[in-house]
Amino acid sequence: MITRDQLMEFDTADALAPMRERFHVPDGVIYLDGNSLGAMPRATAARVAEVVAREWGEGLIRSWNDAGWMALPGRIGAKIAGLVGAPEGTVMVADSTSVNLFKALGAALAARPERRVILSERGNFPTDLYIAQGLAALLERGHSLRLVEASEIAGAVDEDTAVVMLTHVNYHTGAMFDMAAITAAVHARGALMLWDLAHSAGAVPVDLAGAGADLAVGCGYKFLNGGPGAPAFLYVAEHLLPTVRFPLTGWLGHAAPFAFEGSYRPAGGIQAAFVGSPPILSMAALEVGIDLALETPMADVRAKSVRQTTLFAELVAQECGGHGLVEVSPREAGRRGSQVCFAHADAYPIMQALIARGVIGDFRAPDILRFGITPLYLRFVDLWDAVAVLREVMESGEWQQERFRVRQAVT
Amino acid sequence: MITRDQLMEFDTADALAPMRERFHVPDGVIYLDGNSLGAMPRATAARVAEVVAREWGEGLIRSWNDAGWMALPGRIGAKIAGLVGAPEGTVMVADSTSVNLFKALGAALAARPERRVILSERGNFPTDLYIAQGLAALLERGHSLRLVEASEIAGAVDEDTAVVMLTHVNYHTGAMFDMAAITAAVHARGALMLWDLAHSAGAVPVDLAGAGADLAVGCGYKFLNGGPGAPAFLYVAEHLLPTVRFPLTGWLGHAAPFAFEGSYRPAGGIQAAFVGSPPILSMAALEVGIDLALETPMADVRAKSVRQTTLFAELVAQECGGHGLVEVSPREAGRRGSQVCFAHADAYPIMQALIARGVIGDFRAPDILRFGITPLYLRFVDLWDAVAVLREVMESGEWQQERFRVRQAVT
Repeated sequence: MITRDQLMEFDTADALAPMRERFHVPDGVIYLDGNSLGAMPRATAARVAEVVAREWGEGLIRSWNDAGWMALPGRIGAKIAGLVGAPEGTVMVADSTSVNLFKALGAALAARPERRVILSERGNFPTDLYIAQGLAALLERGHSLRLVEASEIAGAVDEDTAVVMLTHVNYHTGAMFDMAAITAAVHARGALMLWDLAHSAGAVPVDLAGAGADLAVGCGYKFLNGGPGAPAFLYVAEHLLPTVRFPLTGWLGHAAPFAFEGSYRPAGGIQAAFVGSPPILSMAALEVGIDLALETPMADVRAKSVRQTTLFAELVAQECGGHGLVEVSPREAGRRGSQVCFAHADAYPIMQALIARGVIGDFRAPDILRFGITPLYLRFVDLWDAVAVLREVMESGEWQQERFRVRQAVT
Repeated sequence: MITRDQLMEFDTADALAPMRERFHVPDGVIYLDGNSLGAMPRATAARVAEVVAREWGEGLIRSWNDAGWMALPGRIGAKIAGLVGAPEGTVMVADSTSVNLFKALGAALAARPERRVILSERGNFPTDLYIAQGLAALLERGHSLRLVEASEIAGAVDEDTAVVMLTHVNYHTGAMFDMAAITAAVHARGALMLWDLAHSAGAVPVDLAGAGADLAVGCGYKFLNGGPGAPAFLYVAEHLLPTVRFPLTGWLGHAAPFAFEGSYRPAGGIQAAFVGSPPILSMAALEVGIDLALETPMADVRAKSVRQTTLFAELVAQECGGHGLVEVSPREAGRRGSQVCFAHADAYPIMQALIARGVIGDFRAPDILRFGITPLYLRFVDLWDAVAVLREVMESGEWQQERFRVRQAVT
């Protein structure tokens, strides 16, 4: 039996506990949705206010140089590189994850022109599949997106596979691929490996270079706590950079953007992945989140995450057994990202009832209750209290109220 | 002879004069660069602070529904539609101008599959040309970007022209195309017309529907005062919307983004142009700028702009004659956007010397001094004072100092 007192003792002994004070967590909220939108670092408000009032208001156009706006995406990219095991000069920040995925897939197909298949798993996050489908349709050269089950990926790579595109931690189930093993299997058949780190960066240790990954994209607004719609990032391995060809060729990726030459001439290295002007206010907020992420060794974050996801699953079994919640995230901690998921036919109204009581997780269609674990601001006792609310919601049947069944735009 | 007193009288009589107080214009600065980065509306700081602290910090993920983040890009798009003569439901806001141009060009080529040429003017803004070159190269179907002089556009449209892509007001010279006449000529030969409104939206009257434009893109951080790197917009004419095919197919353009379907199914209408999550902080700042722009009828803005650009050119002739400044913007006000430009072999150090004295304009390679006129916050007397500084800089020769010759990243 796990007790609330035990969890309070874990908090007392937790070396990461002080990090919670660096974030704003609203009163009355237990936030288990940092994998949809990370909580706000307390330092963000002041930093954004400074960018607005001083850098923009006072500095005006001069701030592109004087306040370092021009260098900002590269600077943030270098910091993210440090979080995901990427060498200097291989990561850029700008645009959305979807747009960066388009660049990465375009680059992959250009690097394997004789191959026609983008291979992915059926359960990958839909925007990844949509972007791949759209690119294949756009090219009209017989490309296609081939989908198999996650377990079949390695065996499905063949001589027509240009690139394998996978999300390292599945948004739906929390299952985590063995990045190095899959990448090696993909390389053995001559294909490129593209990882989506949306649910990994800032959440689990990632070693892109060590795993030999060719391309990667990731999200700034989940575990990096960069704010709503924060710019995303793109990684291109050093061996691809000298010859990389991106499908989006904007002026900020030009070798000399302010020379206003008539023809596109790509900048060297990862700089060529820039397209148009990045949103500076959102970019500045992102940097605050990443600076905070860099303060704690990823191994320590992971250790606490594994303890918390394990405890959460155990607590749900202990307190809510018999309520039909089927654990769908992997039991084995090493195969699980920083989330715990349960299937239930009425997942939607159950999650709405939880949110009404301040326990904020995510519903994921068609039937998943998803609980994201962010060790930097989640206490051990929060796990107990969240599961206690879940138990009350299930036992009382309050989730059956009509008001919890009304679908909202974002679910 | 124009006198300073005359200009002060113009200010006293100017019905738009009170708008200046709605912006922050730094002490000691005469800002003639609102066409690179518009000045900060005073209301922006509070609005952005609210989005950060209350909507993100307190509301967290709930704000996508409760604070209307999901609806924000559509709401701003509707407001921009009102500024550029676009019907409801034809304008969306997200991504950069360059990325939106890629979507627009992709849609145009998909709508004219039997034609292979993107036609533009040689002097168009480089990112427009680069994006077109990149798309043509990506497709590998014989597409090309053909460039002619601005005056030759109408005559150069032929049966292989899929789309004509022009910037309404040229960034370099300030020359403004006759949107309706060019569009009609392009349509007469069966091609589509795509306008880049980067230097038009918020600056000059634009009637996209009236002119019959098929596609348009525009910028949020110039005359719309949306802040550094503010999201851009995209317009698709109603007649194209039922069959439009965009090359970027992300989840937010899906008919049911949160159903997480396995295949892309475009949303109806302009919604299909959305790709990934938009940067909400930058988006919120943009809305403040657009709300401010909507307070003044565009005809009044244009009337003051024409007076100010005309006076500025006259003042330079009157005060700085003999210093080799060659006016390159059109003399005829009806053919000029909201800027005045001069060529000079030493344009770069001259502009740096002006900026050092607080007169902020733009250098545009290779030899252009560009002065943007933003009637909402520019006084008539500012014109006099700016030209007085220009005269001092030219007469003293101070621009010849070595420190003004050091090139900065953004020029």
